[in-house]
Amino acid sequence: MTSEVPVKVVIVGGVAGGMSAATRLRRLDEQAQIVVLERGAHVSYANCGLPYFLGGVIEERDALLVQTPEALRARFRIDVRVRSEAVAVDTAARTVTVRDLASGEEYTESYDRLVLSPGARPFVPELPGVERVFTLRDVSDTDRIAGELAAGARSAVVVGAGFIGVEAAENLRRRGLGVTLVELAGQVLPPLDAEMAAPLAAELRAGGVELALGTQLTEVRDGEVVLDDGRAVPADLVLMAIGVRPDVELARAAGLAIGPRGGITVDERGRTSDEAVYAVGDAAEKRDALSGESTLVPLANLANRHGRLVADAIAGRPVSARPATGTAVVQVFGLTAAATGWNEKRLRAAGRRYQALHLHPGSHAGYYPGASPIALKVLFDPDDLSILGAQAVGADGVDKRVDVLATAIAGGLTAPELADLELAYAPPYGSAKDPVNMAGMIAENLVTRTDRTVQWHELDAARAAGASLVDVRTAAEHARGAIPGAVNIPLDELRDRAAELPDGDLLVHCQVGLRGHTALRLLAGLGRDAANLDGGYATWSAGQAA
Amino acid sequence: MTSEVPVKVVIVGGVAGGMSAATRLRRLDEQAQIVVLERGAHVSYANCGLPYFLGGVIEERDALLVQTPEALRARFRIDVRVRSEAVAVDTAARTVTVRDLASGEEYTESYDRLVLSPGARPFVPELPGVERVFTLRDVSDTDRIAGELAAGARSAVVVGAGFIGVEAAENLRRRGLGVTLVELAGQVLPPLDAEMAAPLAAELRAGGVELALGTQLTEVRDGEVVLDDGRAVPADLVLMAIGVRPDVELARAAGLAIGPRGGITVDERGRTSDEAVYAVGDAAEKRDALSGESTLVPLANLANRHGRLVADAIAGRPVSARPATGTAVVQVFGLTAAATGWNEKRLRAAGRRYQALHLHPGSHAGYYPGASPIALKVLFDPDDLSILGAQAVGADGVDKRVDVLATAIAGGLTAPELADLELAYAPPYGSAKDPVNMAGMIAENLVTRTDRTVQWHELDAARAAGASLVDVRTAAEHARGAIPGAVNIPLDELRDRAAELPDGDLLVHCQVGLRGHTALRLLAGLGRDAANLDGGYATWSAGQAA
Repeated sequence: MTSEVPVKVVIVGGVAGGMSAATRLRRLDEQAQIVVLERGAHVSYANCGLPYFLGGVIEERDALLVQTPEALRARFRIDVRVRSEAVAVDTAARTVTVRDLASGEEYTESYDRLVLSPGARPFVPELPGVERVFTLRDVSDTDRIAGELAAGARSAVVVGAGFIGVEAAENLRRRGLGVTLVELAGQVLPPLDAEMAAPLAAELRAGGVELALGTQLTEVRDGEVVLDDGRAVPADLVLMAIGVRPDVELARAAGLAIGPRGGITVDERGRTSDEAVYAVGDAAEKRDALSGESTLVPLANLANRHGRLVADAIAGRPVSARPATGTAVVQVFGLTAAATGWNEKRLRAAGRRYQALHLHPGSHAGYYPGASPIALKVLFDPDDLSILGAQAVGADGVDKRVDVLATAIAGGLTAPELADLELAYAPPYGSAKDPVNMAGMIAENLVTRTDRTVQWHELDAARAAGASLVDVRTAAEHARGAIPGAVNIPLDELRDRAAELPDGDLLVHCQVGLRGHTALRLLAGLGRDAANLDGGYATWSAGQAA
Repeated sequence: MTSEVPVKVVIVGGVAGGMSAATRLRRLDEQAQIVVLERGAHVSYANCGLPYFLGGVIEERDALLVQTPEALRARFRIDVRVRSEAVAVDTAARTVTVRDLASGEEYTESYDRLVLSPGARPFVPELPGVERVFTLRDVSDTDRIAGELAAGARSAVVVGAGFIGVEAAENLRRRGLGVTLVELAGQVLPPLDAEMAAPLAAELRAGGVELALGTQLTEVRDGEVVLDDGRAVPADLVLMAIGVRPDVELARAAGLAIGPRGGITVDERGRTSDEAVYAVGDAAEKRDALSGESTLVPLANLANRHGRLVADAIAGRPVSARPATGTAVVQVFGLTAAATGWNEKRLRAAGRRYQALHLHPGSHAGYYPGASPIALKVLFDPDDLSILGAQAVGADGVDKRVDVLATAIAGGLTAPELADLELAYAPPYGSAKDPVNMAGMIAENLVTRTDRTVQWHELDAARAAGASLVDVRTAAEHARGAIPGAVNIPLDELRDRAAELPDGDLLVHCQVGLRGHTALRLLAGLGRDAANLDGGYATWSAGQAA
């Protein structure tokens, strides 16, 4: 686009996607006129940091303001206008009507190219008293909540136990408030499968957060909320975090195509149904890497990436967005939870064939101090062996393993190929067989029928069909907690005590699945067919808590 | 191999590769007779933990002993014989001559399949007094060194600043000894490029380790060593860690093929030149993923992986080793250094075309407390854009980024495709544009000629050819330390002060390369051709310290 005639690009929305587009565009074209219209009072702020500012982890409010209009003007010659709302787009005339929120005056701005990056709005349901609730989307929201805290709020109800709700609950608790986290689903962090979320619920409770799962609000009153079970819960502050909806009013009114998921439809170059208009970020639909279908992925990394991409597209570069896998991470007090790709619930709902596997390796070599267990779950396609998704929960090393798995998905590695990854090993960092390698070995054992597993939620049905359950852990482990009705024959005694095994189908289990696998192989050598309880007692008991 | 006739497998070496083969084999074949011969007093010990036991980080010696012969017998029915040295192999008769090191008696053991996993021996050069030096290979070595420490050793010289030498130096320092680290190369950690190793040398010095680089020992005396510059250095204890050599005596004497790198030649199934003999671990050559040539990679993860693989091969499974990339990590006091693939030195020596890029992103979002810079270097092929190698150094998040890059290499991602990786982002863990994404964007800018860089070691030549150097950092940054002769025009003033720019070719630089890139683009828009100093002042100054 180093064209003869300078172009004029107007960008609606001055945070992740919009500002990435603006600065990239300037780097590609010194002559272009670039105008950024931001409805709020700030641009380029750290929206992912807002909960941590509430909790005092981020102490200085200025730290949230990554860029200012003045700095952007000085460095990039970008015309940044805050408190400036784009209220209408005329795609035929290629103009935007802008309302100056300070003065209330409106004016018209022409464009050669328009980039829409309005983001998503927190969803707030119809509810008596709903005008009292807060949402957490921008710095001004944060200021309002901080005002409530300063005014002496003692109790809070956070509605929605997704990423933002959990972060908000933890941070309000950190500020000393009594916090109840209300979630309609029967688990916290619905992006995870139930058995993976169970330890996070325990961690939230241990951190002093009351959980009200499988519940929703029916009314917001002064100082309390009412739940659908009739209970009243103290709430000087109510924060609504039950999800976001693409902010498409402007696009819809302009006649741009809206997709099946309610976001702005864009092609692989970020272009909307109008050739002069692009859209990025939470408001735009993405293509899902697994299904190929339209999806919404309201995550900052894709917003930034696609902001850069539409700048390239406007500059005439041959770019194309990769389909989205969706990778996310959240801190939950002393634990970290991360996920990439699809979870089991979604695969099941979509009717996809999948194989799940669970393991509980240490974050690093067990002989080096400070190792902690990671609960790791990998889902793969039993036909083409591609990795469909992964989830991990633990105190350390969780983000690393999920990033490796996200990269493996991007690179098209199969689940068994994870066994071959050469990952950095020294005792403080990992194990000679890294958790990700272990997942690959388990996958390979399943694919080659070297192991056969039943899932925690399949155990009852398998036993009802006549299979006997053998716990191959030590007697001490068995005594500390066992699955009702399991016969305990420790692995190291299994050869000698094979005669004691029940007739018929066998199910074996240990604590995490590894000894169970060895027991299954041993039994196979003795001519006994067995299945191994995937993830062992650890996954089964998490499933019971779920 | 669930064959009619049970096979007998003899395994020489009971640590990583050998024991992985033994236990996997048992899982695949309950009937096989499995004998493990281990020359030392222990099997399956944590050799990567030995330095940390010396330093007291691992407090209990028993923690190093991951398995015992008794436990292996109970669980896997493996006949583990310690202090049993395989002294000869007769491949025609398929027998091993075993010396019982306790009794001195020898006996013969037959085999159907033999697995050699003897490891590598620390290389000890001819040197007066060399009989006084220690090496660090197994638990018994550690016991001997611990004995010296207990006997009051006050000073130590560690020879060789590779991974083990650096770990040993740090841990001996932790025990309060005066430690001098002697290295023939002009840098610590020769697997890294010099400018990447420079901060690690500073960290070692800050931790109280004396460095003697570009130096070697000429003599070992009682209580001191003499260096080739004539200096005597106190040394109650001398530890030799200048590298390892494949332990191939047994294989060579048996007539097995030895490869060009001095290791045992094996095919992709781990089979040696004799169809009944396999070899794994540090003694066996690997195929290099980049060159396709034979290589040595003495790392625990590959030893474990290939131990499992030869068990599969013996059991008749259709397995094939992936070529080795080589990924490693080391803790250096408060820093971590990690690397995967080839470094720049090796690429240059091999005459390969490559493009290097350096960046210095934060370990996580700068607005969240505790972020620290990561020095990250990526090398890629300018023709097919494949990633050739990567190195990272920093206080946090280093192992994660190198693991992601190792996985990207395994998945065949190109360097620009790193920009598209969806990596887990929340403020405590990363940034919306992760360091690995940033590396991908820089690569993409180079490939599309959006940026043009000169390396730190090319700067002098570029200036000698007439290019003028412009520092676009702030005046305060420039005052804190600058490249001699650079003109300082801060980026935000560059448009207004363009008339002050020198005529002719321009080189721009900032602190880490990002503002330099923006400056280059700005100058391109003004019709001025410029190149950007890759990695900025940070990489350049590390290069000067190297």
